[in-house]
Amino acid sequence: MSGVIVTGPPRAPLPVVDELSALGVATVHEAIGRRGLLDRGLRPIYPGAVLGGTAVTVVCHPGDNLMIHAAVEQCRDGDVLVVTTSSPNTDGLFGELLAVSLRSRGVRGLVSTTGVRDTATLTAMNFPVWSAAVCAQGTVKASAGSVNMPIAIGGTVIRPGDAVIADDDGVVCVPRGEVDAALAAAKARAAKEERTRAALAAGELGLDLYGLRAVLERLGVEYVPYDETREAEG
Amino acid sequence: MSGVIVTGPPRAPLPVVDELSALGVATVHEAIGRRGLLDRGLRPIYPGAVLGGTAVTVVCHPGDNLMIHAAVEQCRDGDVLVVTTSSPNTDGLFGELLAVSLRSRGVRGLVSTTGVRDTATLTAMNFPVWSAAVCAQGTVKASAGSVNMPIAIGGTVIRPGDAVIADDDGVVCVPRGEVDAALAAAKARAAKEERTRAALAAGELGLDLYGLRAVLERLGVEYVPYDETREAEG
Amino acid sequence: MSGVIVTGPPRAPLPVVDELSALGVATVHEAIGRRGLLDRGLRPIYPGAVLGGTAVTVVCHPGDNLMIHAAVEQCRDGDVLVVTTSSPNTDGLFGELLAVSLRSRGVRGLVSTTGVRDTATLTAMNFPVWSAAVCAQGTVKASAGSVNMPIAIGGTVIRPGDAVIADDDGVVCVPRGEVDAALAAAKARAAKEERTRAALAAGELGLDLYGLRAVLERLGVEYVPYDETREAEG
Amino acid sequence: MSGVIVTGPPRAPLPVVDELSALGVATVHEAIGRRGLLDRGLRPIYPGAVLGGTAVTVVCHPGDNLMIHAAVEQCRDGDVLVVTTSSPNTDGLFGELLAVSLRSRGVRGLVSTTGVRDTATLTAMNFPVWSAAVCAQGTVKASAGSVNMPIAIGGTVIRPGDAVIADDDGVVCVPRGEVDAALAAAKARAAKEERTRAALAAGELGLDLYGLRAVLERLGVEYVPYDETREAEG
Amino acid sequence: MSGVIVTGPPRAPLPVVDELSALGVATVHEAIGRRGLLDRGLRPIYPGAVLGGTAVTVVCHPGDNLMIHAAVEQCRDGDVLVVTTSSPNTDGLFGELLAVSLRSRGVRGLVSTTGVRDTATLTAMNFPVWSAAVCAQGTVKASAGSVNMPIAIGGTVIRPGDAVIADDDGVVCVPRGEVDAALAAAKARAAKEERTRAALAAGELGLDLYGLRAVLERLGVEYVPYDETREAEG
Amino acid sequence: MSGVIVTGPPRAPLPVVDELSALGVATVHEAIGRRGLLDRGLRPIYPGAVLGGTAVTVVCHPGDNLMIHAAVEQCRDGDVLVVTTSSPNTDGLFGELLAVSLRSRGVRGLVSTTGVRDTATLTAMNFPVWSAAVCAQGTVKASAGSVNMPIAIGGTVIRPGDAVIADDDGVVCVPRGEVDAALAAAKARAAKEERTRAALAAGELGLDLYGLRAVLERLGVEYVPYDETREAEG
Repeated sequence: MSGVIVTGPPRAPLPVVDELSALGVATVHEAIGRRGLLDRGLRPIYPGAVLGGTAVTVVCHPGDNLMIHAAVEQCRDGDVLVVTTSSPNTDGLFGELLAVSLRSRGVRGLVSTTGVRDTATLTAMNFPVWSAAVCAQGTVKASAGSVNMPIAIGGTVIRPGDAVIADDDGVVCVPRGEVDAALAAAKARAAKEERTRAALAAGELGLDLYGLRAVLERLGVEYVPYDETREAEG
Repeated sequence: MSGVIVTGPPRAPLPVVDELSALGVATVHEAIGRRGLLDRGLRPIYPGAVLGGTAVTVVCHPGDNLMIHAAVEQCRDGDVLVVTTSSPNTDGLFGELLAVSLRSRGVRGLVSTTGVRDTATLTAMNFPVWSAAVCAQGTVKASAGSVNMPIAIGGTVIRPGDAVIADDDGVVCVPRGEVDAALAAAKARAAKEERTRAALAAGELGLDLYGLRAVLERLGVEYVPYDETREAEG
Repeated sequence: MSGVIVTGPPRAPLPVVDELSALGVATVHEAIGRRGLLDRGLRPIYPGAVLGGTAVTVVCHPGDNLMIHAAVEQCRDGDVLVVTTSSPNTDGLFGELLAVSLRSRGVRGLVSTTGVRDTATLTAMNFPVWSAAVCAQGTVKASAGSVNMPIAIGGTVIRPGDAVIADDDGVVCVPRGEVDAALAAAKARAAKEERTRAALAAGELGLDLYGLRAVLERLGVEYVPYDETREAEG
Repeated sequence: MSGVIVTGPPRAPLPVVDELSALGVATVHEAIGRRGLLDRGLRPIYPGAVLGGTAVTVVCHPGDNLMIHAAVEQCRDGDVLVVTTSSPNTDGLFGELLAVSLRSRGVRGLVSTTGVRDTATLTAMNFPVWSAAVCAQGTVKASAGSVNMPIAIGGTVIRPGDAVIADDDGVVCVPRGEVDAALAAAKARAAKEERTRAALAAGELGLDLYGLRAVLERLGVEYVPYDETREAEG
Repeated sequence: MSGVIVTGPPRAPLPVVDELSALGVATVHEAIGRRGLLDRGLRPIYPGAVLGGTAVTVVCHPGDNLMIHAAVEQCRDGDVLVVTTSSPNTDGLFGELLAVSLRSRGVRGLVSTTGVRDTATLTAMNFPVWSAAVCAQGTVKASAGSVNMPIAIGGTVIRPGDAVIADDDGVVCVPRGEVDAALAAAKARAAKEERTRAALAAGELGLDLYGLRAVLERLGVEYVPYDETREAEG
Repeated sequence: MSGVIVTGPPRAPLPVVDELSALGVATVHEAIGRRGLLDRGLRPIYPGAVLGGTAVTVVCHPGDNLMIHAAVEQCRDGDVLVVTTSSPNTDGLFGELLAVSLRSRGVRGLVSTTGVRDTATLTAMNFPVWSAAVCAQGTVKASAGSVNMPIAIGGTVIRPGDAVIADDDGVVCVPRGEVDAALAAAKARAAKEERTRAALAAGELGLDLYGLRAVLERLGVEYVPYDETREAEG
């Protein structure tokens, strides 16, 4: 709801969040049941950016970053600012000065469905940002929004204090109450992938490792020598 | 209008353009009243590209770069080629050979609403280009267009001789007659931002520095402790 | 057609494919009559990626990478996997494990109209990929598709065994039966461009080199001094 | 979460939903604080379509309508099927036969982020549908999803039993627990608009009715006669 | 290939094409194995438009309709003009005058990946058109293209003489050599759908008719009463 | 520039504007040299809508319709409101109440790069609107913009008092000082098209009427019998 700033939400425990972050977005996403990805249009402003922290959520009016300023005060060490707008907007709602301000409070990075600017400086600062666009367009500070209310981005709901993990593959949100289970599942998955990687590198086929030949057979997929397809065409 | 090549337009003074370029797109855009940005879809072909110069404007037929060749002859030291098409088109209207030709005339870079190609070579040449796409699609040289007529890109009008500044944040155009005023305003803004940066780094809040608490109050934004929102939901 | 895996298609000869690859996408595309480009939205996951090989084609169901696993078995040294879906889909159908598997069979890279994930690892592996998106979204292995049937991407038909060349400028397909003619034409074009480059660097104009002044004249393009356009506006 | 069908959720009371529906999407959206709109890309398949009912939510795999079939059984009189996919997909997941099946259970219409087909027949049936696309592409029935779990479309969360209202202006969701308050607010707004309409039709200005002259003044907006702007340009 | 006009291609027999057309796009698409759809962005210019005929294929340069004029001469009674461009373009390559010309030759309608114009008149003429856009932008007649060469639209290859069927659901192409088999399969499918429709209208569920309960079970989909999901959330 | 309302601009004479409107967008666009079209994404909210009048231009902040209210006061009989935003935005900035207000001042219709709402009522009122979207999203009235300053939409500059013509084919702007010349040219073109239409209806070919056989020959386009293309493929 517009016009509300929620103070003092609990956060997911940072040590768990940090372990999740080290496992990477794809692994965590798979581990929690192939859920939790934010809009796939959110891309890092520099390659290799990595981020993990607890969400402070913000809804701004389009072309207006007033509520980001209000949100800074609600941030604390280990947080990630997650920003969206009440209607789609790619103006540059965020830039270097806000990054300086957030960093002074221990905030680890930004995820925003809007545009951002000053990306050369943000990159030099090593301040990781995932956004829908890079855009110099300036904004006003005139309309209400919300801070720390639940928001939805790309079909995924993000609540204040949820774990937010981001890397080159995108951004995933793990609900605060599920981080321990997510970590256990992600570690198990990573271990299993390690074994699979070795088998595949040795020349084994996914068809055999995953039992997919039976699936192909059930689906009626046929193997046809190339020469026979030529006859059919002729 | 199609079919016209305007010769000898006056240019904004290069020393002023160079100072504007050094201040960056976001600062100049803000300084002239949050105006002048070209379409936000125009992105540099390599990170860190920086450009400042005086516009030679070109309108091509889609899939046709005849008028770029005509425009080369109209270019001189310090110019920037600004290309658009009479209807949207992302073919590769520009590549290495045209860059070689432009560089031999002292042209500093390209801004184009089309696609470009040979970007690996352009990057190796350190020839800065902002475009809507990278695309190998070749073009013909068969239809008329214009050179040095006013054009509009993304809501901004660009006239020959205007200052064009580009960096990672996008592209901004400053009308030729306004470059001195723009430079003064941009310098003032940069100085002010310097002070703001120091205050924010020291932990001051934008809410206080910009007087935004009063705005939030006027808008009726309320602060609600997290626990109360839980009760409301329950 | 869905449900078919074609085995043993002939491939274009790798030495010819390698020479084509060295000449680059733009040159090859121009040499074969400005044809053969795949969808311009397919971009490399890291700058400077270069790829040349023979196509193994795959059609997957959206959100389902079963047929990629089936395709791995059909691959051999020098191949390039070319993947599309029966309807548009940017999920992460491909990632590190499949790259490990493909590399163990000598496959040189991937071209896919879908999304891919694990791009940081793929980049570290130096495994070149062109895709429509980067996306962590995981997939199922439940629905039939095809391997080594002709497919069409962006208006271009790709058949198994065709030469596929990719670089920063995009992806081009040369039909298997045309690679020799394509190579001869591409070499001739490259040689000609070498001469043109030297002339342009020396200050000659494309208007003269390409005989374009006559074209401008035939089209009725007029040269108008800037001062006269001001009078017209006044 | 994938793989779950929730049975027997409570519904918002239909008489209230019907009154909300009669007031229209724009009025209801404004009345609940300018919230609740689903993705603006969802459009009715025929002009003048109107819909109001209680949500049965569905998440399908892309290109797969298995879970819609599972959802039919969970529907009852007065429901509206609200369908999305785990990744963006515009295949024709819904058509005439499913509409026949839904109608036999008293379902009032469909809202889907996918494509639909058989729109000529659906229109003849007067079965209202809002979708992101019309597309003949057929689907499989092979992968799990969910029924009656909370979903998010365009930043708005829809839970089973929520009121869903749709007309030419789009689709709005009112949480089940808020329908009474929403109805009161919407009626008040409609009454006020009636008075405003009469005043505006009589020639009064919104500037005066809404007290906007003071806003313009506070923002420093200036009135400048046209002739003076010409001098400035000259 | 550019620069070629193929004369006298054989056509699919019109009586078969007409029967396919009567069965509709969705049914034909399903009957031939869920293939053959052209780009889903192609929409009719008026609701209820229906088209069936044999393809005359055209590739134009963007913003240039020269080859449509060349194609008119190649058309005969029962044909459908199928137009694309060598790079994406939505200019108005087609309008009333070309429709008058085509109609005088017995051509039944147009399918084009470009824009069209004069749609009010085309509608009044009852001349059915499927296009990617409506756009007044005029074109030149300056560059070569092709007529009656195979083209690919949205992953589907269309060859001269193929059957092209279009209605509100989109456009499908049936290869010339497959029309008889397609008709038989489509009739069988339509008959089966008739029986399914009656069962569904009588209240039977797709879950039972299609045997989907077993699929849900195999996938591990669980039924959970609503009250239990509330406890989990609490 | 933001923050300025220009009063009393001269208008193009309405009788000339009305004659232009009767000739239609495509004809006027061609007559003035294939210029003047606004963004092709602007579509009428109902088929058959026709509009001609003199422009009152408005720039709004995204999600904010304050300046539309300010613009109403500047409107007079025969005007058309032309609205854009300082950054792309498809919220519903315009609806029934504003239409009632505009109509009471003799305004003929709206052209807007934003969304509009209440389209069912606007259609019932026969109030013609061209917009980029239909969207119920409500707006605030909080930020400055401009009225009657030159704006640019889709590459075309619109100044206050210019003639704006719109129909199913899109929207075209004729500069105020050019309406007489435009009308003469458009009438001539319409007369010529009348003769062309008759010739085409009688079976003449555009190839002959427009002298295009010579163009095809100059471009080297070849006619190849179908059977020969089969041999080449074989």
